[in-house]
Amino acid sequence: MSTGISLEELQLAARNHGMPLEALRHEITPLGLHYLLVHYDIPVVDPATWRLAVAGTRELSLSLDDLRARDAVTAPVTMECAGNGRALLEPRPVSQPWLTEAVGTAAWTGVPLAPLLAEAGIPDGAVEVVFTGLDRGVEGGVEQLYERSLSVDDAMRDDVMLAYACNGVPLPPQHGFPLRLLVPGWYGMTSVKWLQRIGFTREPFTGYQMVTGYRMRAGEDDPGTPVTRMEPRSLIAPPGIPDFMTRRRFLTAGRHRLEGRAWSGWGAIEQVDISTDGGETWRPASPGSAPGPAAWTPFALDWEATEGEHVLCSRARDASGRTQPAAPPWNVGGYANNALQRIPVTVRA
Amino acid sequence: MSTGISLEELQLAARNHGMPLEALRHEITPLGLHYLLVHYDIPVVDPATWRLAVAGTRELSLSLDDLRARDAVTAPVTMECAGNGRALLEPRPVSQPWLTEAVGTAAWTGVPLAPLLAEAGIPDGAVEVVFTGLDRGVEGGVEQLYERSLSVDDAMRDDVMLAYACNGVPLPPQHGFPLRLLVPGWYGMTSVKWLQRIGFTREPFTGYQMVTGYRMRAGEDDPGTPVTRMEPRSLIAPPGIPDFMTRRRFLTAGRHRLEGRAWSGWGAIEQVDISTDGGETWRPASPGSAPGPAAWTPFALDWEATEGEHVLCSRARDASGRTQPAAPPWNVGGYANNALQRIPVTVRA
Repeated sequence: MSTGISLEELQLAARNHGMPLEALRHEITPLGLHYLLVHYDIPVVDPATWRLAVAGTRELSLSLDDLRARDAVTAPVTMECAGNGRALLEPRPVSQPWLTEAVGTAAWTGVPLAPLLAEAGIPDGAVEVVFTGLDRGVEGGVEQLYERSLSVDDAMRDDVMLAYACNGVPLPPQHGFPLRLLVPGWYGMTSVKWLQRIGFTREPFTGYQMVTGYRMRAGEDDPGTPVTRMEPRSLIAPPGIPDFMTRRRFLTAGRHRLEGRAWSGWGAIEQVDISTDGGETWRPASPGSAPGPAAWTPFALDWEATEGEHVLCSRARDASGRTQPAAPPWNVGGYANNALQRIPVTVRA
Repeated sequence: MSTGISLEELQLAARNHGMPLEALRHEITPLGLHYLLVHYDIPVVDPATWRLAVAGTRELSLSLDDLRARDAVTAPVTMECAGNGRALLEPRPVSQPWLTEAVGTAAWTGVPLAPLLAEAGIPDGAVEVVFTGLDRGVEGGVEQLYERSLSVDDAMRDDVMLAYACNGVPLPPQHGFPLRLLVPGWYGMTSVKWLQRIGFTREPFTGYQMVTGYRMRAGEDDPGTPVTRMEPRSLIAPPGIPDFMTRRRFLTAGRHRLEGRAWSGWGAIEQVDISTDGGETWRPASPGSAPGPAAWTPFALDWEATEGEHVLCSRARDASGRTQPAAPPWNVGGYANNALQRIPVTVRA
């Protein structure tokens, strides 16, 4: 990294946090270890007075009890921040300075969205569904509630839900209490937290988070394309023990099991390869079973570690044929950087 | 801040996180929002095989069930990282780059330590009790398990406990599952997580975290004095709404209730003053009731905000007469910086 992180970036890093990578050893990320990205402040919501408005051809007003009374679904879902890897780009786009840890997998419980939209009635000519949170702030000079839209087709997909619980407990405040949208396979910005309203538009929604934020732009003049589904990525749980300050890893020579998890929003993980020489040579790792269609796939490989310096990498390929690049794919916002993780390790006798 | 944060500091900031200050609105910090500082890796512990060894004149080996079968106590305890405020020092000591958010209050449940030490038998001539965690790493070139000691007198205090639950649920992995020490009033480094062994020494313990880390040192040649109890500090929950990137606050003119919490490890909070002009003038805030003797005290003040730029500060004084300085107290390790918080706000019509 050529330049130091600024105070503003540090302010963001101190409040939003990644998943410490040793937590890759958990199939379901324990509460508090899942990555967290909050644009404004975490709202304090009184569940007794909170209501969700669904404004279709008629307007529904639903309490948390109303939602809990409906048929519930639970699904393990891997979620990644669209900005994961941003701070590894050169030049570094200035925003939340993620390294590689902005990911997590939770077991989300809630109600499927499609039947609710059908009950509210989808207006003729509606093209998008708009989701509005309770979190208000200023971004790029624009005061706003956090809002994102989905096409009606995407919103009606079977796996899209409104979640009120996470890992078996009510949503923690920071994950959207009392209710959040959950769109499996997409980067996290889509899964609007602290939901207060769902509406329809007859034109594509032009809110800040759709037309200014979260776009893949090659340069300042490029309007870009929307950030949507997660690119394939794999991460190895760093083996051995760390140095507190540098996070460098130390191992003793001998056999070590390298373990990690891989995911993609574009299709199931079909192959993961591991390199112990920084990507010069690769060996296939054994992928295990994902706990669900939208959750990460475990992989493992035994490694005979020899004394010296090594760099561990893993590379995932999904059913769509997408894979991970060696060099980060730069863009103005620093989104979707799924370049190979690099873990330097020192192996001692 | 004169220099940018380094990649190494960012790596620490991405995994250890503060409490977003809007969470000051909660008397008990929700799980996942409490600050977190982990020196090495978070261990994965199998509770079925885990045992706590207490090596006194006889050696106890206790399972989690053994501990749960004992009389339990629950106490709300405010805990702060000794390095809180480090990144605001000039020059900045290089370590976890905390701003002001490294704090939280949890309701901890566990067993009092003193009866357990008495059962194990305190050896004649013992001066200190040593607490050993399961977390192993390298620090300052020294490979180590995380270990800290307390004087026998401090360890035998009524409020010192071994905690196995937090906010009514088993300890999350990152807070020390299955068992941690909890020493109310002291900075967090004392409350050793992932406890595996408690022993006694007849000489002061010379482990790294006692003689090298966590000492107040004026310069590199100064052996310094130990970091122990929390200095008084107060924080205001930032009012209004934030700018995503700069975290600057925006308010509308008119009456706003400024709310915050204050704590000290040296005595009860007796007074909190609030300034809206960066510390030029002060008004007393109304302190409320702390939820327990080792937990923070709420305070509030109504403010008639006028258009323009303001800087909010609060200043706590405890029963020992200690208060908060305007300028940060510099030391080599960047510990115990309890200087006034400064919240710039823009008030608009």
